[in-house]
Amino acid sequence: MSISPLARPFHDLPPVAGVRLGPATAGYKNWTRADVLLAEFAPGTTVAGVLTRSKCPSPEVEWCRRALAGGSARALMVNAGNSNAFTGSAGRDASRAQVEAVAAAVGCAAGEVFVASTGVIGVPLPRDKAVGVVAAARDALGAASFHDACTAIVTTDTFAKGATATAVIGGVRVVVTGIVKGSGMIAPDMATMLGFVFTDAVIAVPLLQAMLADAADRSFNAITVDGDTSTSDTVLAFATGAAGNRPLESLDSSGADAFAAALREVCTTLARLVVRDGEGATKFVTVEVEGAESDAAAKRIALSIANSPLVKTAIAGGDANWGRVVMAVGKAGEAADRDRLEIRFGGTTVARNGAVVAGYDETPVANHLKGQEVEIGVDLHLGRGRARVWTCDLTHGYVSINGDYRS
Amino acid sequence: MSISPLARPFHDLPPVAGVRLGPATAGYKNWTRADVLLAEFAPGTTVAGVLTRSKCPSPEVEWCRRALAGGSARALMVNAGNSNAFTGSAGRDASRAQVEAVAAAVGCAAGEVFVASTGVIGVPLPRDKAVGVVAAARDALGAASFHDACTAIVTTDTFAKGATATAVIGGVRVVVTGIVKGSGMIAPDMATMLGFVFTDAVIAVPLLQAMLADAADRSFNAITVDGDTSTSDTVLAFATGAAGNRPLESLDSSGADAFAAALREVCTTLARLVVRDGEGATKFVTVEVEGAESDAAAKRIALSIANSPLVKTAIAGGDANWGRVVMAVGKAGEAADRDRLEIRFGGTTVARNGAVVAGYDETPVANHLKGQEVEIGVDLHLGRGRARVWTCDLTHGYVSINGDYRS
Repeated sequence: MSISPLARPFHDLPPVAGVRLGPATAGYKNWTRADVLLAEFAPGTTVAGVLTRSKCPSPEVEWCRRALAGGSARALMVNAGNSNAFTGSAGRDASRAQVEAVAAAVGCAAGEVFVASTGVIGVPLPRDKAVGVVAAARDALGAASFHDACTAIVTTDTFAKGATATAVIGGVRVVVTGIVKGSGMIAPDMATMLGFVFTDAVIAVPLLQAMLADAADRSFNAITVDGDTSTSDTVLAFATGAAGNRPLESLDSSGADAFAAALREVCTTLARLVVRDGEGATKFVTVEVEGAESDAAAKRIALSIANSPLVKTAIAGGDANWGRVVMAVGKAGEAADRDRLEIRFGGTTVARNGAVVAGYDETPVANHLKGQEVEIGVDLHLGRGRARVWTCDLTHGYVSINGDYRS
Repeated sequence: MSISPLARPFHDLPPVAGVRLGPATAGYKNWTRADVLLAEFAPGTTVAGVLTRSKCPSPEVEWCRRALAGGSARALMVNAGNSNAFTGSAGRDASRAQVEAVAAAVGCAAGEVFVASTGVIGVPLPRDKAVGVVAAARDALGAASFHDACTAIVTTDTFAKGATATAVIGGVRVVVTGIVKGSGMIAPDMATMLGFVFTDAVIAVPLLQAMLADAADRSFNAITVDGDTSTSDTVLAFATGAAGNRPLESLDSSGADAFAAALREVCTTLARLVVRDGEGATKFVTVEVEGAESDAAAKRIALSIANSPLVKTAIAGGDANWGRVVMAVGKAGEAADRDRLEIRFGGTTVARNGAVVAGYDETPVANHLKGQEVEIGVDLHLGRGRARVWTCDLTHGYVSINGDYRS
């Protein structure tokens, strides 16, 4: 698998106080690389999470949903190469056994262990490997970097994805650092996407949860590669509190805005990196919709455009086929008035008031579409609702990758 | 463009009494073939229609929506190669001028003329060509077959599509014959699809409308190629009354069931033919969902499967990737219980009660997927809702066709 042409380098991510990382090799597939990641958190670490809305979630997702109610985390275990989804009681038992093993290794309650698995659906997690690898992962704790950690959780990803930001809370600098994996089956909500954010900030669970949900809506839930939603999507945020800032308790707390901005920045960067690794992607597409009846309507219209195979194949072919954008607006089911609709590619308005602009010159649009970054703008001229989503083009590469994924 | 491997021969369709067909060449594109179809109907012909739900419909769709209120039809004019959608007042004026020209040529009111256009979006219908061709089409009336008529309305289609059925109403045999065009931008509701059904039956407008709406729900609105919905989708049914049967007034009329069945059969055959001409299609896929909470829920789940790029690419690759079916069920948003879910490929159950069946042998499933006809069955084991939809696989051919459509 060659590296995505839209790849970005993995910037050096410094350690987060209170987090120790331990990659190891369980051997779920015939990979020689590390395929599990254990993260250990300092006592007192709080946790928040956003999980797939799939009606057929993996046992790991169900476990996290229950464990999040406790609000306390001491460990995270990630398995790569096997999603353990749709594996019945065998899969549930294997996952539970791994949770118990991690709890014993770290010395915490099972309810403080979070788990995530990614890979092919329908094959139970091999219990012996899943439990057996825990000791090696615990022994590895501390020596690994975030790059090592990210490399241990990827599957069809072609490059490692991380991001970091800082915020100052009452004079204390805190760091927010995240890693993510995901490449296909990417759609709200959310993706075959596992995203993990680590911070040394002191922050109460309800506030962290609210901020993470908001950040996810603007980032992980605003991307789509193929409109397909995974059974295993998981985003977790862990706050160790090692920075010792004055605790963030509510949105009114001093420094809360700065922390929320840093969290949003990290999530947005990670989400955009997932699109940049979209299966077969050759172009990174931003869809901006404004003038809709509401923000929610704008987002549905934006996703209708971003998920349209006809729009995505046109972009792959460098074709400024704005008629397909009209089609996608029309099918979204949200209020639209054809005769007020305005469509832009890059900085060029191609259609306004329900028809192509007078003297439309396709040259600048064609040039824009030759680049790796494509912008589609739609103004419905109806209201104040707006949304922005990111996607990639639909190429022969996508068909090749997914027509022969399991072999 | 080579003929779809899933193509079916065009069976000889006898004339329908009261319908005269006139293909002609307007020259909308640099085709030498006929690209318009005029159909003239006997006085007293009733009409029903189902039109796109796109919020950005073409002026032809808007015209038909108004004209349907009159319930009477004397002519149908179809333009191929230009959809006239999103063309502002220039497009509206050109379409209206064509309607007036047809009304004058046939000798009827403008409100008895129905129009449809298909092709690229955003280019106004050339008024001179659209009006100028009417005389030639009128002069051609009578000599043409349904095959000639269908050949005049296709665009990216690779084969002509027609169907016929008969019904006996109080001892009188009536015929129902239809033609359809459509290949891409095919999704409920409905497709870049134009479908026209002609019958010599005597039937009241409200009953014909109800029967057509029901038939369309089970046929044209139960197919998807790419989930994209056109601005121009139109299905019209014209009943000339030439058979002289005792009028069908309500569902209780003698013969109404037989007529409804014939209409449904024709619509279903036509809809399935559109899927068989799906852009790049190499496999014809039937998705059957049962045990859902309601028929509507079953249909949404079936369409979630049928529109999933991951399911469709797996089928293209002959990959029995039932995990992607689980994913598509899970993302549909309808009630599902993972641990009751059952999935079949062809006649083989691959998963039951939330896990792969014991001793699962992929061989018969792999063999099934090698064929041109693929069946996916899902039983949710929750209720009695059921639905059946048809789709095709997603191949390199689709990407090639749509990445370079306009050039």
